[in-house]
Amino acid sequence: MDVFMGLIVLLVLAKLLGELVERAGYPALLGEVGAGIVLGPTLLNWIAFDSTIEIFSNIGIIVLLFLSGTELSLKFFLEARYAAASAAAGGVVIPFLLGLALGYLFSFPILETLCIAIALSITSIGISVRTLIDFRKLHTLMGSTIVGAAMLDDIIGIVLLGTLLSLTFQGTVDLGAEAIALLLAFVFLLFMLTAGKQILRWILAQSRKSALHEMTFSSSILIALGTAYIAHLLGLHFAIGAFLAGLVLGDQIRDDRMLLDSIADFSFGFFVTIFFASVGLLVQFQWELLLSSFTLPLILVAFLGKVIGGYLGSLPFLRDHGSSLIVGLGLTPRGEIALVVIKVALVAGILTAALYSILTLMVVVTILVVPVLMKQAILLEERSRTGVLPDSGPGQTREPVHR
Amino acid sequence: MDVFMGLIVLLVLAKLLGELVERAGYPALLGEVGAGIVLGPTLLNWIAFDSTIEIFSNIGIIVLLFLSGTELSLKFFLEARYAAASAAAGGVVIPFLLGLALGYLFSFPILETLCIAIALSITSIGISVRTLIDFRKLHTLMGSTIVGAAMLDDIIGIVLLGTLLSLTFQGTVDLGAEAIALLLAFVFLLFMLTAGKQILRWILAQSRKSALHEMTFSSSILIALGTAYIAHLLGLHFAIGAFLAGLVLGDQIRDDRMLLDSIADFSFGFFVTIFFASVGLLVQFQWELLLSSFTLPLILVAFLGKVIGGYLGSLPFLRDHGSSLIVGLGLTPRGEIALVVIKVALVAGILTAALYSILTLMVVVTILVVPVLMKQAILLEERSRTGVLPDSGPGQTREPVHR
Repeated sequence: MDVFMGLIVLLVLAKLLGELVERAGYPALLGEVGAGIVLGPTLLNWIAFDSTIEIFSNIGIIVLLFLSGTELSLKFFLEARYAAASAAAGGVVIPFLLGLALGYLFSFPILETLCIAIALSITSIGISVRTLIDFRKLHTLMGSTIVGAAMLDDIIGIVLLGTLLSLTFQGTVDLGAEAIALLLAFVFLLFMLTAGKQILRWILAQSRKSALHEMTFSSSILIALGTAYIAHLLGLHFAIGAFLAGLVLGDQIRDDRMLLDSIADFSFGFFVTIFFASVGLLVQFQWELLLSSFTLPLILVAFLGKVIGGYLGSLPFLRDHGSSLIVGLGLTPRGEIALVVIKVALVAGILTAALYSILTLMVVVTILVVPVLMKQAILLEERSRTGVLPDSGPGQTREPVHR
Repeated sequence: MDVFMGLIVLLVLAKLLGELVERAGYPALLGEVGAGIVLGPTLLNWIAFDSTIEIFSNIGIIVLLFLSGTELSLKFFLEARYAAASAAAGGVVIPFLLGLALGYLFSFPILETLCIAIALSITSIGISVRTLIDFRKLHTLMGSTIVGAAMLDDIIGIVLLGTLLSLTFQGTVDLGAEAIALLLAFVFLLFMLTAGKQILRWILAQSRKSALHEMTFSSSILIALGTAYIAHLLGLHFAIGAFLAGLVLGDQIRDDRMLLDSIADFSFGFFVTIFFASVGLLVQFQWELLLSSFTLPLILVAFLGKVIGGYLGSLPFLRDHGSSLIVGLGLTPRGEIALVVIKVALVAGILTAALYSILTLMVVVTILVVPVLMKQAILLEERSRTGVLPDSGPGQTREPVHR
């Protein structure tokens, strides 16, 4: 199938499955990832994740995080910073340790064990954010904690991957390089929240004076792509730059209803769908691996590690068992970054093909199961907080769901 | 420069130059094409027209023509069919004959002469339509005539290219294959205006019932891409399918202001800009060719052929010298299709590198000069029709410009 046709088929199936899943009451992203699994190497093998799909998919995750940034208030996000840092730490340390223990238990070589531990430590920003948006929980303290923690996880994940690769190829760790990577990440973060903020707000304000009707839209998209690219150059994930840009431009974009609508359609109606579908394309597992004795323990650890780590990390700040558990759940999905890490490890000869497939299976299970669990957890938490059943009809006393 | 960075730089420069040109009172597309010329092989050679840019660019021309279709009324378009057919015939026959004469005069071999004649015969739908939109003349009888004629030109151009290639490689013309290509094109046209119309309108109506907010947008884009792909499979240009889809969905999309805005931003704020910039990337000429004795006559013939042909062809139907001249001018720009044809001819060994470069120069000149001439012609025509200067202020008697 040529690339153009592939894009069309992928989008059509993703939208159709997304519609079905949404009608069943779950986030459409499940259907979109499902479309990628169906059309990718796992089932039909009609569409490959090639360099063109990769660009569309990158634009998708970039605009998704840009939009998420605009939905969050900067104040709220900064308020959640300690909770986020603590949840991120818990959500990395516990799965990492459990991963090491698991590798030891199953007698994997040290590098493979490390790789398992790293894959278990990385949260997918995209899946978490999209799930929060779909449940309209993004702009809560809990939502800010999850997004902030997922971002920090990503930074930690990049450092861990660097460590693993230098261990593999040089047999030693270059602490200087790791420190520089970390430093750059934090300088970028600081810059975006100070001078960068002023610059981006100035650019967007200028674009409103343009002779071209579509200039504000173009500027917004180009700001998202540009900041994403800078983050990428600094060794961070694309999406972090775009998220920060969205965060500092939030009110400017939210106040322009037509602009926000256009960006939302551009994103959710096209690129974001390609992103989630391409996560499905990246998956590659053989069904017989379901029978491996390593599969079930790995999946169990994938859930327990993040849920416990995120719960313990955020509890001291959120002071609420329900919300803290949801933070843990929200950090559980692994996604495109974990898939890329294990792909790199496969190509570098660290992972066997069989272990690679089992890890992709773990990723898929977290993606597909977490939204379902989160829905239940959010309903339960709302019920326990208000003592009223969510479906208790008119005259209810519970807080309205934010829209 | 990697592809992602290339896209960003191309978009930024295209938007900036577009803004400057627009402020100077001319269509922004000139600045967009200019950005491609600056960044492409002609000047800086920073960005190549690779397969990824090609996909973005194809989506650009597709959504441009889709939107143009929605702006035209089907009734008006059908009313203009005889004028369009006649203008198309004039706009192909005269440049083709002049091209043959020119080739003969400069003693080019027969295949090269044929190739020059074909390149002179092909109108760029994209440039014509964008210019008409910018001057708000798309939904006039004149606009319908230009668009219809440009579409027919494209069909004729495809047939001519097929003829040239079979002459080159088989030394003979496969009349059966040519007849089938023509037949398919007309069957597709008929289908789109009858059963296809019903199917597409049903799909779009269904999408409004979706649980997903962005589904109407996604469906519109997918309809444009899907019909474009079918046209492509039938050997037509992508854009023809999307144009017809837009034409039959016109009222359904125009009545949904938010949908129309989103599609317009998606198109003009991103993909269409990449399309026009990539036309500039396709250009490749050496400045010293300006001195070739063939250059000036070729450019002269490029203008005279289309202006005279379009004028003579449309005059019996439009019965107005001014409008008929504008139709001729509107058919004058050659663009991406002409560039692709001569590229194919270059690769097939029909054209020398020098002649190829001169032909791309001819294409660029028509693109850059026609919008400027059209602006003057439209102002003159409005003035002569109403006897009032366009800038005569309030209380004027001339018809209001349609918006």
